[in-house]
Amino acid sequence: MNFSIIKRTVGWLLLFETIFLFVPTLTACVYREWDVLWSILASMGACLAVGGLCFIGKPKDRSIYAKEGLVIVALSWIVLSLFGALPFWFSRAIPSYVDALFETVSGFTTTGATIMPSGEAVEALPKSLLMWRSFTHWVGGMGVLVFIMAFLPLSGARNMHIMKAESPGPIVGKLVPKVRTTAGILYGIYFALTVLMFIMLLLGRMPLFDALNTAFGTAGTGGFSIKADGFAGYSPYIQWVVTAFMLLFSLNFNAYFLILCGKIKDAFNLEIRVFLGIVIVAITSITINLCVTTCALYNYTVGEAIRYSAFSVASVISTTGFATENFDLWPAFSKCILVLIMFVGACAGSTGGGIKVSRFVVLYKGATHEMKRMLHPKQVKKISMDGHIVEHEVVRNTNAYIVTYIFIFIASLLAVSLDFSGMTAMTGEVGYDALVTNFTAVVATLNNIGPGLGAVGPAGNFAFYSDFSKIIFIFNMLAGRLELYPILLLFVPTTWKR
Amino acid sequence: MNFSIIKRTVGWLLLFETIFLFVPTLTACVYREWDVLWSILASMGACLAVGGLCFIGKPKDRSIYAKEGLVIVALSWIVLSLFGALPFWFSRAIPSYVDALFETVSGFTTTGATIMPSGEAVEALPKSLLMWRSFTHWVGGMGVLVFIMAFLPLSGARNMHIMKAESPGPIVGKLVPKVRTTAGILYGIYFALTVLMFIMLLLGRMPLFDALNTAFGTAGTGGFSIKADGFAGYSPYIQWVVTAFMLLFSLNFNAYFLILCGKIKDAFNLEIRVFLGIVIVAITSITINLCVTTCALYNYTVGEAIRYSAFSVASVISTTGFATENFDLWPAFSKCILVLIMFVGACAGSTGGGIKVSRFVVLYKGATHEMKRMLHPKQVKKISMDGHIVEHEVVRNTNAYIVTYIFIFIASLLAVSLDFSGMTAMTGEVGYDALVTNFTAVVATLNNIGPGLGAVGPAGNFAFYSDFSKIIFIFNMLAGRLELYPILLLFVPTTWKR
Repeated sequence: MNFSIIKRTVGWLLLFETIFLFVPTLTACVYREWDVLWSILASMGACLAVGGLCFIGKPKDRSIYAKEGLVIVALSWIVLSLFGALPFWFSRAIPSYVDALFETVSGFTTTGATIMPSGEAVEALPKSLLMWRSFTHWVGGMGVLVFIMAFLPLSGARNMHIMKAESPGPIVGKLVPKVRTTAGILYGIYFALTVLMFIMLLLGRMPLFDALNTAFGTAGTGGFSIKADGFAGYSPYIQWVVTAFMLLFSLNFNAYFLILCGKIKDAFNLEIRVFLGIVIVAITSITINLCVTTCALYNYTVGEAIRYSAFSVASVISTTGFATENFDLWPAFSKCILVLIMFVGACAGSTGGGIKVSRFVVLYKGATHEMKRMLHPKQVKKISMDGHIVEHEVVRNTNAYIVTYIFIFIASLLAVSLDFSGMTAMTGEVGYDALVTNFTAVVATLNNIGPGLGAVGPAGNFAFYSDFSKIIFIFNMLAGRLELYPILLLFVPTTWKR
Repeated sequence: MNFSIIKRTVGWLLLFETIFLFVPTLTACVYREWDVLWSILASMGACLAVGGLCFIGKPKDRSIYAKEGLVIVALSWIVLSLFGALPFWFSRAIPSYVDALFETVSGFTTTGATIMPSGEAVEALPKSLLMWRSFTHWVGGMGVLVFIMAFLPLSGARNMHIMKAESPGPIVGKLVPKVRTTAGILYGIYFALTVLMFIMLLLGRMPLFDALNTAFGTAGTGGFSIKADGFAGYSPYIQWVVTAFMLLFSLNFNAYFLILCGKIKDAFNLEIRVFLGIVIVAITSITINLCVTTCALYNYTVGEAIRYSAFSVASVISTTGFATENFDLWPAFSKCILVLIMFVGACAGSTGGGIKVSRFVVLYKGATHEMKRMLHPKQVKKISMDGHIVEHEVVRNTNAYIVTYIFIFIASLLAVSLDFSGMTAMTGEVGYDALVTNFTAVVATLNNIGPGLGAVGPAGNFAFYSDFSKIIFIFNMLAGRLELYPILLLFVPTTWKR
C-alpha cells in the first residue's frame, strides 16, 4: 500500500473542497447571513490546514495499482464528507455531528435522505447552507475525483484506476484515449445539461435561488428539497421539466458524447433501451392503477395521475428522490413497482445510483445462458451485448456484486432492526409498519434514493433513528455510491499491508 | 424430446398415486367416513384409468438425457398434484378446484400454506382428508420419483438425471455407486426417523391420529396443521419433540448415512455447521429480543420465550411452517430475523425447502473470492469447501440460480400485487400492510414454508387471494420445491423440440 500517494491525493481533495465552499460563502454574502458565514469560513480554514499538512513530504513512489485506486476513492469520499459536515455543525443548524455527517454524506452520495425533522425545519435553514446541501449533490453526482482529474496533471495509470473505482457500472469505458480528456468531456456535458435545466426552470418563472438548487439537486440525481412540500407547490411545467431532466441525468453520459459525434444509433444501446422500456411500463402501470382504484387519500384527474406517476417513477428510478405526491399513500401495486425500480436504479455511467440497468441485463443474460446450457450442454456460446462479447470476467464480477449487495443489505437490515426505541415511538403512534420502514430505509440509502416508504416515506425523514442506525445508513450511502468494493475493502486487513 | 418415455413414467407415477391413496381410504374406513370414502375411491379410479392409458404403446427409445430428466420431474409433480386434488374436490370439502389444487400442491411441495378460511374450518375437515393432506407432505418431502426409483428397475442414467432434478441442493451426490440403492437408503433413513418421531410423540400422550399426522407433516417439513391453534394446545414436551425433529429433517440425509458408517467427523460438514450456527444465533437473538421488549400482545417467561423462539426458528428455517405462537405480533427485530431465515432454508439433500444453506456458502465464497482477486489480481486460487475444490461450474450455476430466483420473485410479487380487491378487503379491515403480506406470501410459497407475515401470518391463510394469485402461488410452490429449472424449462419452446 502506497500511503504517501494516498496522503497527497487527500491533500488535493481538501484544497478542492475549500474551493467548493466558496459557493455557500457567496450565498451567505448575497443573503447577508453573517452568522453562518463565519462557520463556513472556519470550515474552509479547517480544510486548508489539514489539506496543507498532507502536502508535507514528497512521495518517492508515484505508482498506484488497483488496490490503491480503490482505497484512495474510499478515503477521499470519507474525508470529503467529514469536512463537508463542518458548516452544518459549526453553525449549530444541525447540532449533532452524526446528523450533520449523515446530511453531508447523503448530499455527496446524491442520496437525498434527510435528518431534518420536518419540512418546516428544512425551510428554516439558512439559504447558504441550503445551497451547500444542493451543491454537494452536484459535486458528488459525477464524482469528485473525476472532477479533480479533469484539472490536475496526474499520471495516466493512476487516473484509470481511480476512475474505475469512482464511476458507476460494471464496465467503465474511456471515451477518448486519454483519461483526463474523458473526465473533461464528461464534466463538460454535465455542466452544459445543468445550465440548460437551470435556464428552463427560470423560463417557468421559478425563483433564481430555487432554480439553482433544483438544477444542482437534479443534475446529481440527489433529491434534497428546499421546500416543505417538495415540488407539489410548483407549476406543472416545472414538475415536467424536473421529470425530464431526472431521466436525462439517469442515462449513460457516453450516449451524449456519441450523439455529439453523430453516432445516434450507437447511443441508444441495449441498456438505455431497457431503461426507457422500464420507465414507460412503470409510468403506464402506475397511472392506470391510480385511475382505476379510488381512494379517500387521493383523487386525481387522468392528467394529474400521469404527471404524478411520471414524476415519481423518474424520481425513484433515477434515484433522485424528489417528491410531489406522497406515494406512500398509493395502492399496493404502485408501491410495489416503485420499490422494485428502487433496486434497478439508473444506467451505468450516469449520475444516478442503484444496482444499474446494465447489471440486470448482464445478470439476466447470464441466467438464461445457464438455462440454455442445461438444455443443450454441448452448445457453448458466448454472451453478447450490443454486438460485443461480454467477457466472462464481467459476468462473474456482476454476480459477485449482486451477492455482496445482498449480504450488505441483510446485515444492514438486521442492524437497523435492532433500533427498537425510535422505531416503536415512530411506528406505534402513526401505525407505520416497522418492517416496511426499515426495509425501504436500507433500500433508499444503499441505492442513494432518499425517501423510502412508511416512516421514511416522502413525507417522513430519518431523524428518529438512533446514532447507531444513522452510522449504518452513512455506511450504506457510501457503499452504494462507490459500488460496494472500495468501502468494503477498507475493512479487509490485507488491504493495509505495505 | 423423448415423449414416449415421459408418458411411461407418468403412468408409473399415477399407479403409485393410487397406492398412496390407500392411506386416506384406510382412514376413512377406520373413522367410518363413508361419504368421503366414495370420493377417494373415485380419485383412485381416475388415477388408475389415466395411468393405465399411459401404458399403451411400448417406448422404442429408452434413452433419456438431462432435458428429459427435468421435464419428467416437472410434469410428474404437476400430474401428481392435479390428481391428488381430486379427493378434496369430489368430496366438496373444498368446493373450488383451484383451491383444492392449491392445497394439494402446498401438500406435495411441503409448503403447508392453506386456503382453509380458518382454523375451525381445518378442524371440520373429515379425518381421512386431513390424513391425505399430511400424507402428501410425507410423499413430497423426499421426492416421489426418488420413491418410485427405489422400487422400480429403471436404467441407471435415467435415474441419475431424475434424481438430480428432484433432489434439492447445488450438488447431488450418490451415497453408493447405484442410484437405486442410494434412493433406497435415503428412504430407509426417512422412514426410520419418521417412525422414531411417531413413537416419541405417542410417549408424550399425543392421540394416535394427531401423532401420525404430525410425524408425516414434520418429516416432510410440510406444515399443515390439524388444529385451529397449531401446536399451542399441545404440551411443552411435544413442542420440543417437534422442534427437534423439524431440525433433524432439515439436515442433509447424507449425514445420517455417514454417521451410520461411523464417519461422524465427515457428517458434520461445513453446510451443517453453518446451519446449526444460524439456528443457535437466531434462537438466542429472538429469545433476548422477546425477553427485553415488553408488549401487551405477549408476556412470556424466559422458559416460554426460549421454547417459542426455538419452535419458530426451527419451523421457519426448516421451512415446515408449524406454529405455536403468532410471530406476526413479535417485535420488528424478531420478525426481521424470521423473514431472513425464510430465504435461507434448510440444508441441501434434506426434505426442507428454501434457497439452501450450501448455496449461501457457495455464494459467499464466490463473492469473497472475487474481492480477493481485486486486491491481488495475479493470485488465482480455487474455491474449496470441506477440503474439496468447488468446481467453477457449481459457482456459476449457483449464481445463475440466485438471479433466476430474484427474477421469479419479482415477477410473482408484481403479479400478486395486482390482486387489489381481496387485498383491500383483507388489509383495510384488520390493518395489515399489503406490501408485507404480498412480499411474505411470495417468500412463503417460493421457499415452501407456509405462513408469512401480515394477512398470511401464522394466524392467517391464503383464502382471500383471487384464483389468479393462487395460480401464481401454485407455480411458486412447484418452482421452489423443484428448484426453479424443471418448471421454468416447461415454458421454453426449445425444450419441446424432438
